[in-house]
Amino acid sequence: RIVELLEDHFAAEAPRPLLKGKTVLITAGPTREKLDPVRYLTNHSTGKMGYAIAEEARKMGAHVILVSGPVTLKPPFGVETVNVESAQEMYEAVMKNYSDADVVIKTAAVADYRPKTVHGKKIKKQEGGQTLELERTKDILLELGRQKHHQLLVGFAAETDNVEEYARRKLAKKNADMIVANNVTEAGAGFGTDTNIVTLYKKDGSEVHMPLMSKADVARKLLAEIAHQLERDGLK
Amino acid sequence: RIVELLEDHFAAEAPRPLLKGKTVLITAGPTREKLDPVRYLTNHSTGKMGYAIAEEARKMGAHVILVSGPVTLKPPFGVETVNVESAQEMYEAVMKNYSDADVVIKTAAVADYRPKTVHGKKIKKQEGGQTLELERTKDILLELGRQKHHQLLVGFAAETDNVEEYARRKLAKKNADMIVANNVTEAGAGFGTDTNIVTLYKKDGSEVHMPLMSKADVARKLLAEIAHQLERDGLK
Repeated sequence: RIVELLEDHFAAEAPRPLLKGKTVLITAGPTREKLDPVRYLTNHSTGKMGYAIAEEARKMGAHVILVSGPVTLKPPFGVETVNVESAQEMYEAVMKNYSDADVVIKTAAVADYRPKTVHGKKIKKQEGGQTLELERTKDILLELGRQKHHQLLVGFAAETDNVEEYARRKLAKKNADMIVANNVTEAGAGFGTDTNIVTLYKKDGSEVHMPLMSKADVARKLLAEIAHQLERDGLK
Repeated sequence: RIVELLEDHFAAEAPRPLLKGKTVLITAGPTREKLDPVRYLTNHSTGKMGYAIAEEARKMGAHVILVSGPVTLKPPFGVETVNVESAQEMYEAVMKNYSDADVVIKTAAVADYRPKTVHGKKIKKQEGGQTLELERTKDILLELGRQKHHQLLVGFAAETDNVEEYARRKLAKKNADMIVANNVTEAGAGFGTDTNIVTLYKKDGSEVHMPLMSKADVARKLLAEIAHQLERDGLK
Protein backbone atom coordinates (compact mmCIF):
# COMPACT_ATOMS: atom_id res chain seq x y z
CA ARG A 1 0.00 0.00 0.00
CA ILE A 2 2.89 2.34 0.69
CA VAL A 3 4.25 1.41 -2.72
CA GLU A 4 0.87 2.19 -4.23
CA LEU A 5 0.84 5.58 -2.53
CA LEU A 6 4.34 6.34 -3.76
CA GLU A 7 3.54 5.21 -7.26
CA ASP A 8 0.50 7.46 -7.32
CA HIS A 9 2.56 10.35 -6.06
CA PHE A 10 5.45 10.05 -8.44
CA ALA A 11 3.65 8.73 -11.49
CA ALA A 12 4.56 10.75 -14.57
CA GLU A 13 0.92 10.62 -15.60
CA ALA A 14 -0.47 11.26 -12.13
CA PRO A 15 -3.99 12.59 -12.66
CA ARG A 16 -4.61 16.17 -11.68
CA PRO A 17 -6.50 16.49 -8.39
CA LEU A 18 -9.63 17.68 -10.20
CA LEU A 19 -11.89 16.35 -7.44
CA LYS A 20 -9.91 17.46 -4.41
CA GLY A 21 -12.22 18.33 -1.51
CA LYS A 22 -15.21 16.65 -3.17
CA THR A 23 -17.09 13.65 -1.82
CA VAL A 24 -18.07 11.19 -4.54
CA LEU A 25 -20.67 8.54 -3.74
CA ILE A 26 -20.58 5.58 -6.14
CA THR A 27 -22.78 2.50 -6.33
CA ALA A 28 -21.56 -0.67 -8.04
CA GLY A 29 -22.37 -4.29 -8.74
CA PRO A 30 -25.66 -6.18 -8.83
CA THR A 31 -28.14 -6.70 -6.03
CA ARG A 32 -29.52 -10.03 -4.88
CA GLU A 33 -33.23 -10.41 -4.17
CA LYS A 34 -34.02 -13.54 -2.17
CA LEU A 35 -36.82 -15.99 -2.88
CA ASP A 36 -35.75 -18.20 0.03
CA PRO A 37 -32.47 -18.95 1.86
CA VAL A 38 -31.02 -20.61 -1.26
CA ARG A 39 -32.46 -18.95 -4.36
CA TYR A 40 -32.31 -15.35 -5.55
CA LEU A 41 -32.87 -13.06 -8.51
CA THR A 42 -29.87 -11.10 -9.74
CA ASN A 43 -28.19 -9.80 -12.89
CA HIS A 44 -24.89 -9.96 -14.77
CA SER A 45 -23.23 -6.86 -13.28
CA THR A 46 -19.71 -7.59 -12.01
CA GLY A 47 -19.01 -4.14 -10.52
CA LYS A 48 -15.98 -3.46 -12.75
CA MET A 49 -17.23 -0.09 -14.08
CA GLY A 50 -18.10 1.24 -10.62
CA TYR A 51 -14.87 0.00 -9.04
CA ALA A 52 -12.85 1.63 -11.85
CA ILE A 53 -14.64 4.94 -11.25
CA ALA A 54 -14.06 4.66 -7.49
CA GLU A 55 -10.35 4.11 -8.01
CA GLU A 56 -9.93 6.94 -10.51
CA ALA A 57 -11.99 9.37 -8.40
CA ARG A 58 -9.74 8.61 -5.44
CA LYS A 59 -6.66 9.27 -7.59
CA MET A 60 -8.19 12.63 -8.58
CA GLY A 61 -8.27 13.58 -4.89
CA ALA A 62 -11.91 12.84 -4.03
CA HIS A 63 -13.17 11.29 -0.82
CA VAL A 64 -14.90 8.23 -2.25
CA ILE A 65 -17.75 6.25 -0.71
CA LEU A 66 -18.44 3.05 -2.65
CA VAL A 67 -21.72 1.25 -1.95
CA SER A 68 -21.22 -2.18 -3.44
CA GLY A 69 -23.47 -5.14 -4.12
CA PRO A 70 -21.99 -8.67 -3.97
CA VAL A 71 -19.00 -8.85 -6.34
CA THR A 72 -15.70 -10.74 -6.38
CA LEU A 73 -13.54 -7.59 -6.80
CA LYS A 74 -11.13 -6.38 -4.14
CA PRO A 75 -12.25 -3.18 -2.39
CA PRO A 76 -10.22 -0.35 -3.95
CA PHE A 77 -7.44 1.13 -1.86
CA GLY A 78 -8.26 4.35 -0.02
CA VAL A 79 -11.99 4.09 -0.66
CA GLU A 80 -14.70 3.85 2.01
CA THR A 81 -16.55 0.70 0.93
CA VAL A 82 -20.01 -0.22 2.20
CA ASN A 83 -21.16 -3.75 1.29
CA VAL A 84 -24.84 -4.42 0.72
CA GLU A 85 -26.86 -7.26 -0.77
CA SER A 86 -30.43 -6.25 -1.67
CA ALA A 87 -31.88 -3.22 -3.46
CA GLN A 88 -33.41 -2.12 -0.16
CA GLU A 89 -30.03 -2.23 1.62
CA MET A 90 -28.46 -0.29 -1.25
CA TYR A 91 -31.21 2.32 -1.05
CA GLU A 92 -30.62 2.78 2.68
CA ALA A 93 -26.82 3.01 2.37
CA VAL A 94 -27.09 5.57 -0.45
CA MET A 95 -29.66 7.78 1.29
CA LYS A 96 -27.61 7.74 4.49
CA ASN A 97 -24.61 9.21 2.64
CA TYR A 98 -26.48 11.48 0.21
CA SER A 99 -26.31 14.78 2.09
CA ASP A 100 -22.51 14.51 2.35
CA ALA A 101 -22.02 13.85 -1.35
CA ASP A 102 -21.08 16.41 -3.99
CA VAL A 103 -21.37 13.87 -6.77
CA VAL A 104 -23.36 10.63 -6.96
CA ILE A 105 -22.54 8.10 -9.69
CA LYS A 106 -24.96 5.19 -9.86
CA THR A 107 -23.31 2.37 -11.80
CA ALA A 108 -25.00 -0.43 -9.81
CA ALA A 109 -27.46 -2.67 -11.61
CA VAL A 110 -30.10 -2.55 -8.91
CA ALA A 111 -32.95 -5.04 -9.19
CA ASP A 112 -36.19 -3.34 -10.28
CA TYR A 113 -38.25 -6.19 -8.88
CA ARG A 114 -38.02 -8.49 -5.90
CA PRO A 115 -40.12 -11.48 -4.82
CA LYS A 116 -43.18 -10.27 -2.90
CA THR A 117 -42.72 -13.09 -0.39
CA VAL A 118 -39.34 -14.18 0.95
CA HIS A 119 -39.59 -17.71 2.32
CA GLY A 120 -37.66 -18.46 5.51
CA LYS A 121 -37.24 -22.09 4.45
CA LYS A 122 -36.17 -23.51 1.12
CA ILE A 123 -39.20 -23.80 -1.16
CA LYS A 124 -39.68 -27.49 -2.09
CA LYS A 125 -40.21 -28.20 -5.74
CA GLN A 126 -43.54 -29.53 -6.89
CA GLU A 127 -45.00 -30.98 -10.04
CA GLY A 128 -45.75 -28.43 -12.70
CA GLY A 129 -45.09 -24.71 -12.97
CA GLN A 130 -45.18 -22.00 -10.36
CA THR A 131 -46.01 -18.34 -10.33
CA LEU A 132 -43.64 -15.91 -8.70
CA GLU A 133 -45.20 -12.63 -7.58
CA LEU A 134 -42.78 -9.74 -7.91
CA GLU A 135 -43.01 -6.25 -6.48
CA ARG A 136 -41.10 -3.09 -7.37
CA THR A 137 -38.04 -2.12 -5.36
CA LYS A 138 -37.43 1.53 -4.48
CA ASP A 139 -36.16 3.54 -7.45
CA ILE A 140 -32.97 4.96 -5.94
CA LEU A 141 -32.10 7.36 -8.76
CA LEU A 142 -35.65 8.75 -8.82
CA GLU A 143 -35.49 9.36 -5.07
CA LEU A 144 -32.05 11.00 -5.35
CA GLY A 145 -33.43 13.27 -8.09
CA ARG A 146 -36.39 14.28 -5.92
CA GLN A 147 -34.22 15.10 -2.90
CA LYS A 148 -31.44 16.74 -4.90
CA HIS A 149 -30.12 20.08 -3.63
CA HIS A 150 -26.46 20.72 -4.47
CA GLN A 151 -25.49 17.24 -5.76
CA LEU A 152 -24.45 16.38 -9.29
CA LEU A 153 -26.35 13.23 -10.16
CA VAL A 154 -25.04 10.71 -12.71
CA GLY A 155 -27.00 7.60 -13.69
CA PHE A 156 -26.11 4.62 -15.85
CA ALA A 157 -28.38 2.94 -18.35
CA ALA A 158 -27.59 -0.57 -19.54
CA GLU A 159 -29.89 -1.19 -22.45
CA THR A 160 -30.30 -3.74 -25.20
CA ASP A 161 -32.28 -1.54 -27.61
CA ASN A 162 -33.38 2.09 -28.19
CA VAL A 163 -30.43 3.20 -26.09
CA GLU A 164 -30.58 6.95 -26.78
CA GLU A 165 -34.32 7.23 -26.36
CA TYR A 166 -34.26 5.43 -22.98
CA ALA A 167 -31.24 7.42 -21.82
CA ARG A 168 -32.80 10.82 -22.66
CA ARG A 169 -36.07 9.83 -21.02
CA LYS A 170 -34.23 8.64 -17.91
CA LEU A 171 -32.25 11.90 -17.70
CA ALA A 172 -35.47 13.94 -17.59
CA LYS A 173 -37.61 11.64 -15.49
CA LYS A 174 -34.99 11.10 -12.78
CA ASN A 175 -33.87 14.75 -12.59
CA ALA A 176 -30.31 13.55 -13.27
CA ASP A 177 -27.47 15.69 -14.62
CA MET A 178 -25.86 13.03 -16.79
CA ILE A 179 -26.76 9.57 -18.00
CA VAL A 180 -24.03 7.20 -19.17
CA ALA A 181 -25.64 4.77 -21.57
CA ASN A 182 -24.32 1.61 -23.08
CA ASN A 183 -25.75 -1.11 -25.22
CA VAL A 184 -24.88 -4.27 -23.32
CA THR A 185 -25.32 -6.39 -26.44
CA GLU A 186 -22.33 -4.75 -28.20
CA ALA A 187 -19.06 -6.73 -28.12
CA GLY A 188 -16.68 -5.01 -25.69
CA ALA A 189 -19.47 -3.20 -23.84
CA GLY A 190 -21.38 -3.87 -20.68
CA PHE A 191 -21.21 -6.66 -18.11
CA GLY A 192 -18.07 -8.56 -17.17
CA THR A 193 -15.81 -6.97 -19.78
CA ASP A 194 -12.75 -4.83 -19.04
CA THR A 195 -13.76 -2.41 -21.77
CA ASN A 196 -16.83 -0.36 -22.48
CA ILE A 197 -18.48 1.69 -25.23
CA VAL A 198 -20.65 4.44 -23.83
CA THR A 199 -22.35 7.68 -24.65
CA LEU A 200 -22.71 10.39 -22.04
CA TYR A 201 -25.97 12.34 -22.28
CA LYS A 202 -26.05 15.67 -20.46
CA LYS A 203 -28.89 17.82 -19.16
CA ASP A 204 -27.94 20.67 -21.53
CA GLY A 205 -28.74 18.39 -24.47
CA SER A 206 -25.14 17.69 -25.45
CA GLU A 207 -23.59 14.26 -25.64
CA VAL A 208 -20.09 12.76 -25.52
CA HIS A 209 -19.41 9.53 -27.39
CA MET A 210 -16.71 7.28 -25.99
CA PRO A 211 -15.66 4.54 -28.42
CA LEU A 212 -14.27 1.18 -27.25
CA MET A 213 -11.83 1.84 -24.41
CA SER A 214 -10.85 0.37 -21.05
CA LYS A 215 -13.23 0.91 -18.13
CA ALA A 216 -10.41 2.87 -16.43
CA ASP A 217 -10.32 5.27 -19.41
CA VAL A 218 -14.11 5.60 -19.41
CA ALA A 219 -13.85 6.38 -15.67
CA ARG A 220 -11.21 9.08 -16.22
CA LYS A 221 -13.11 10.75 -19.04
CA LEU A 222 -16.39 10.66 -17.15
CA LEU A 223 -14.81 12.10 -14.00
CA ALA A 224 -13.12 14.87 -16.01
CA GLU A 225 -16.54 15.76 -17.47
CA ILE A 226 -18.00 15.78 -13.97
CA ALA A 227 -15.18 17.95 -12.62
CA HIS A 228 -15.70 20.49 -15.41
CA GLN A 229 -19.43 20.54 -14.77
CA LEU A 230 -18.84 21.16 -11.05
CA GLU A 231 -16.53 24.03 -11.98
CA ARG A 232 -19.12 25.56 -14.34
CA ASP A 233 -21.87 25.13 -11.72
CA GLY A 234 -19.60 26.86 -9.15
CA LEU A 235 -19.27 29.91 -11.41
CA LYS A 236 -23.02 30.43 -11.68
CA ARG B 1 2.08 -28.07 -12.61
CA ILE B 2 5.12 -30.27 -12.68
CA VAL B 3 5.69 -29.29 -9.06
CA GLU B 4 2.09 -30.22 -8.29
CA LEU B 5 2.59 -33.63 -9.94
CA LEU B 6 5.78 -34.23 -8.00
CA GLU B 7 4.20 -33.13 -4.75
CA ASP B 8 1.31 -35.50 -5.32
CA HIS B 9 3.73 -38.30 -6.08
CA PHE B 10 6.04 -37.88 -3.15
CA ALA B 11 3.61 -36.60 -0.55
CA ALA B 12 3.93 -38.59 2.67
CA GLU B 13 0.15 -38.61 2.87
CA ALA B 14 -0.40 -39.31 -0.81
CA PRO B 15 -3.86 -40.81 -1.07
CA ARG B 16 -4.07 -44.42 -2.15
CA PRO B 17 -5.19 -44.81 -5.77
CA LEU B 18 -8.58 -46.15 -4.66
CA LEU B 19 -10.27 -44.92 -7.82
CA LYS B 20 -7.65 -45.92 -10.37
CA GLY B 21 -9.27 -46.87 -13.68
CA LYS B 22 -12.61 -45.36 -12.68
CA THR B 23 -14.33 -42.46 -14.40
CA VAL B 24 -15.99 -40.07 -11.97
CA LEU B 25 -18.49 -37.53 -13.29
CA ILE B 26 -19.05 -34.60 -10.94
CA THR B 27 -21.40 -31.63 -11.23
CA ALA B 28 -20.71 -28.41 -9.33
CA GLY B 29 -21.85 -24.85 -8.82
CA PRO B 30 -25.16 -23.12 -9.42
CA THR B 31 -27.05 -22.71 -12.68
CA ARG B 32 -28.32 -19.44 -14.11
CA GLU B 33 -31.82 -19.26 -15.57
CA LYS B 34 -32.33 -16.17 -17.72
CA LEU B 35 -35.33 -13.85 -17.63
CA ASP B 36 -33.80 -11.58 -20.27
CA PRO B 37 -30.25 -10.66 -21.39
CA VAL B 38 -29.57 -8.94 -18.05
CA ARG B 39 -31.54 -10.67 -15.28
CA TYR B 40 -31.44 -14.27 -14.07
CA LEU B 41 -32.48 -16.60 -11.29
CA THR B 42 -29.72 -18.41 -9.44
CA ASN B 43 -28.65 -19.65 -6.01
CA HIS B 44 -25.83 -19.34 -3.48
CA SER B 45 -23.75 -22.34 -4.59
CA THR B 46 -20.08 -21.44 -5.11
CA GLY B 47 -18.91 -24.83 -6.40
CA LYS B 48 -16.40 -25.37 -3.58
CA MET B 49 -17.72 -28.80 -2.52
CA GLY B 50 -17.78 -30.16 -6.08
CA TYR B 51 -14.37 -28.76 -6.95
CA ALA B 52 -12.91 -30.28 -3.78
CA ILE B 53 -14.34 -33.69 -4.72
CA ALA B 54 -13.00 -33.36 -8.28
CA GLU B 55 -9.52 -32.62 -7.00
CA GLU B 56 -9.49 -35.45 -4.45
CA ALA B 57 -10.94 -37.96 -6.93
CA ARG B 58 -8.16 -37.08 -9.37
CA LYS B 59 -5.57 -37.59 -6.61
CA MET B 60 -7.09 -41.03 -5.96
CA GLY B 61 -6.37 -41.95 -9.56
CA ALA B 62 -9.76 -41.40 -11.18
CA HIS B 63 -10.42 -39.90 -14.58
CA VAL B 64 -12.56 -36.92 -13.55
CA ILE B 65 -15.12 -35.08 -15.66
CA LEU B 66 -16.37 -31.94 -13.93
CA VAL B 67 -19.52 -30.30 -15.31
CA SER B 68 -19.51 -26.86 -13.75
CA GLY B 69 -22.01 -24.02 -13.57
CA PRO B 70 -20.70 -20.42 -13.43
CA VAL B 71 -18.29 -20.10 -10.49
CA THR B 72 -15.17 -18.06 -9.78
CA LEU B 73 -12.99 -21.08 -8.92
CA LYS B 74 -10.02 -22.15 -11.02
CA PRO B 75 -10.58 -25.42 -12.95
CA PRO B 76 -8.78 -28.15 -10.96
CA PHE B 77 -5.54 -29.48 -12.43
CA GLY B 78 -5.81 -32.72 -14.38
CA VAL B 79 -9.60 -32.64 -14.52
CA GLU B 80 -11.70 -32.52 -17.71
CA THR B 81 -13.90 -29.48 -17.05
CA VAL B 82 -17.07 -28.71 -19.02
CA ASN B 83 -18.56 -25.27 -18.40
CA VAL B 84 -22.31 -24.79 -18.60
CA GLU B 85 -24.73 -22.07 -17.58
CA SER B 86 -28.35 -23.26 -17.43
CA ALA B 87 -29.99 -26.38 -15.96
CA GLN B 88 -30.74 -27.54 -19.50
CA GLU B 89 -27.08 -27.23 -20.53
CA MET B 90 -26.03 -29.10 -17.40
CA TYR B 91 -28.55 -31.85 -18.14
CA GLU B 92 -27.18 -32.27 -21.66
CA ALA B 93 -23.52 -32.32 -20.58
CA VAL B 94 -24.23 -34.89 -17.87
CA MET B 95 -26.27 -37.21 -20.08
CA LYS B 96 -23.62 -37.05 -22.79
CA ASN B 97 -21.00 -38.39 -20.37
CA TYR B 98 -23.21 -40.75 -18.36
CA SER B 99 -22.48 -44.03 -20.13
CA ASP B 100 -18.71 -43.56 -19.61
CA ALA B 101 -19.05 -42.90 -15.89
CA ASP B 102 -18.55 -45.43 -13.11
CA VAL B 103 -19.55 -42.92 -10.46
CA VAL B 104 -21.69 -39.78 -10.69
CA ILE B 105 -21.58 -37.22 -7.87
CA LYS B 106 -24.12 -34.44 -8.22
CA THR B 107 -23.06 -31.55 -5.99
CA ALA B 108 -24.43 -28.84 -8.30
CA ALA B 109 -27.33 -26.75 -7.06
CA VAL B 110 -29.34 -26.97 -10.26
CA ALA B 111 -32.31 -24.63 -10.59
CA ASP B 112 -35.61 -26.50 -10.19
CA TYR B 113 -37.49 -23.74 -12.00
CA ARG B 114 -36.75 -21.42 -14.87
CA PRO B 115 -38.75 -18.54 -16.38
CA LYS B 116 -41.27 -19.88 -18.88
CA THR B 117 -40.44 -17.04 -21.27
CA VAL B 118 -36.91 -15.77 -21.89
CA HIS B 119 -37.06 -12.25 -23.29
CA GLY B 120 -34.55 -11.38 -26.02
CA LYS B 121 -34.54 -7.73 -24.93
CA LYS B 122 -34.25 -6.28 -21.45
CA ILE B 123 -37.70 -6.15 -19.84
CA LYS B 124 -38.56 -2.51 -19.07
CA LYS B 125 -39.86 -1.85 -15.62
CA GLN B 126 -43.43 -0.70 -15.18
CA GLU B 127 -45.59 0.66 -12.41
CA GLY B 128 -46.73 -1.96 -9.93
CA GLY B 129 -45.94 -5.62 -9.52
CA GLN B 130 -45.37 -8.32 -12.07
CA THR B 131 -45.98 -12.01 -12.23
CA LEU B 132 -43.22 -14.33 -13.35
CA GLU B 133 -44.34 -17.67 -14.75
CA LEU B 134 -41.90 -20.45 -13.91
CA GLU B 135 -41.65 -23.93 -15.33
CA ARG B 136 -39.80 -26.99 -14.05
CA THR B 137 -36.35 -27.79 -15.37
CA LYS B 138 -35.40 -31.40 -16.08
CA ASP B 139 -34.64 -33.35 -12.91
CA ILE B 140 -31.14 -34.59 -13.71
CA LEU B 141 -30.76 -36.97 -10.76
CA LEU B 142 -34.17 -38.55 -11.43
CA GLU B 143 -33.20 -39.11 -15.06
CA LEU B 144 -29.82 -40.59 -14.07
CA GLY B 145 -31.62 -42.94 -11.66
CA ARG B 146 -34.01 -44.08 -14.40
CA GLN B 147 -31.23 -44.76 -16.89
CA LYS B 148 -28.86 -46.31 -14.36
CA HIS B 149 -27.11 -49.54 -15.28
CA HIS B 150 -23.66 -49.99 -13.71
CA GLN B 151 -23.18 -46.50 -12.26
CA LEU B 152 -22.96 -45.59 -8.61
CA LEU B 153 -25.13 -42.53 -8.17
CA VAL B 154 -24.52 -39.96 -5.41
CA GLY B 155 -26.80 -36.97 -4.87
CA PHE B 156 -26.50 -33.96 -2.58
CA ALA B 157 -29.35 -32.40 -0.63
CA ALA B 158 -28.99 -28.86 0.66
CA GLU B 159 -31.87 -28.37 3.03
CA THR B 160 -32.98 -25.86 5.62
CA ASP B 161 -35.30 -28.16 7.59
CA ASN B 162 -36.31 -31.84 7.96
CA VAL B 163 -32.94 -32.79 6.50
CA GLU B 164 -33.03 -36.55 7.19
CA GLU B 165 -36.60 -37.02 5.99
CA TYR B 166 -35.93 -35.21 2.71
CA ALA B 167 -32.63 -37.06 2.19
CA ARG B 168 -34.15 -40.52 2.72
CA ARG B 169 -37.07 -39.69 0.44
CA LYS B 170 -34.68 -38.40 -2.24
CA LEU B 171 -32.54 -41.54 -2.03
CA ALA B 172 -35.55 -43.76 -2.78
CA LYS B 173 -37.32 -41.55 -5.30
CA LYS B 174 -34.23 -40.87 -7.42
CA ASN B 175 -32.92 -44.46 -7.33
CA ALA B 176 -29.64 -43.08 -5.94
CA ASP B 177 -27.03 -45.08 -4.02
CA MET B 178 -26.05 -42.36 -1.58
CA ILE B 179 -27.35 -38.94 -0.60
CA VAL B 180 -25.05 -36.44 1.09
CA ALA B 181 -27.24 -34.09 3.09
CA ASN B 182 -26.44 -30.88 4.83
CA ASN B 183 -28.42 -28.25 6.61
CA VAL B 184 -27.31 -25.05 4.91
CA THR B 185 -28.52 -22.98 7.86
CA GLU B 186 -25.88 -24.46 10.21
CA ALA B 187 -22.77 -22.33 10.80
CA GLY B 188 -19.85 -23.91 8.92
CA ALA B 189 -22.10 -25.85 6.54
CA GLY B 190 -23.34 -25.24 3.04
CA PHE B 191 -22.77 -22.46 0.56
CA GLY B 192 -19.60 -20.40 0.27
CA THR B 193 -17.86 -21.88 3.31
CA ASP B 194 -14.60 -23.86 3.23
CA THR B 195 -16.04 -26.35 5.71
CA ASN B 196 -19.09 -28.54 5.76
CA ILE B 197 -21.16 -30.68 8.14
CA VAL B 198 -22.85 -33.53 6.34
CA THR B 199 -24.54 -36.86 6.80
CA LEU B 200 -24.21 -39.57 4.19
CA TYR B 201 -27.35 -41.69 3.77
CA LYS B 202 -26.87 -45.01 1.98
CA LYS B 203 -29.26 -47.27 0.13
CA ASP B 204 -28.68 -50.08 2.66
CA GLY B 205 -30.18 -47.86 5.37
CA SER B 206 -26.91 -46.99 7.08
CA GLU B 207 -25.61 -43.49 7.57
CA VAL B 208 -22.24 -41.82 8.15
CA HIS B 209 -22.12 -38.56 10.11
CA MET B 210 -19.29 -36.18 9.30
CA PRO B 211 -18.91 -33.40 11.88
CA LEU B 212 -17.49 -29.98 11.00
CA MET B 213 -14.48 -30.51 8.72
CA SER B 214 -12.91 -28.99 5.63
CA LYS B 215 -14.60 -29.62 2.28
CA ALA B 216 -11.40 -31.44 1.20
CA ASP B 217 -11.80 -33.84 4.16
CA VAL B 218 -15.48 -34.36 3.37
CA ALA B 219 -14.42 -35.11 -0.22
CA ARG B 220 -11.81 -37.69 0.87
CA LYS B 221 -14.18 -39.45 3.27
CA LEU B 222 -16.99 -39.52 0.74
CA LEU B 223 -14.73 -40.87 -2.03
CA ALA B 224 -13.36 -43.56 0.32
CA GLU B 225 -16.95 -44.65 1.06
CA ILE B 226 -17.65 -44.70 -2.67
CA ALA B 227 -14.51 -46.73 -3.43
CA HIS B 228 -15.47 -49.31 -0.78
CA GLN B 229 -18.98 -49.53 -2.17
CA LEU B 230 -17.59 -50.10 -5.70
CA GLU B 231 -15.38 -52.86 -4.28
CA ARG B 232 -18.32 -54.52 -2.50
CA ASP B 233 -20.48 -54.23 -5.64
CA GLY B 234 -17.65 -55.82 -7.65
CA LEU B 235 -17.64 -58.88 -5.36
CA LYS B 236 -21.33 -59.58 -5.90
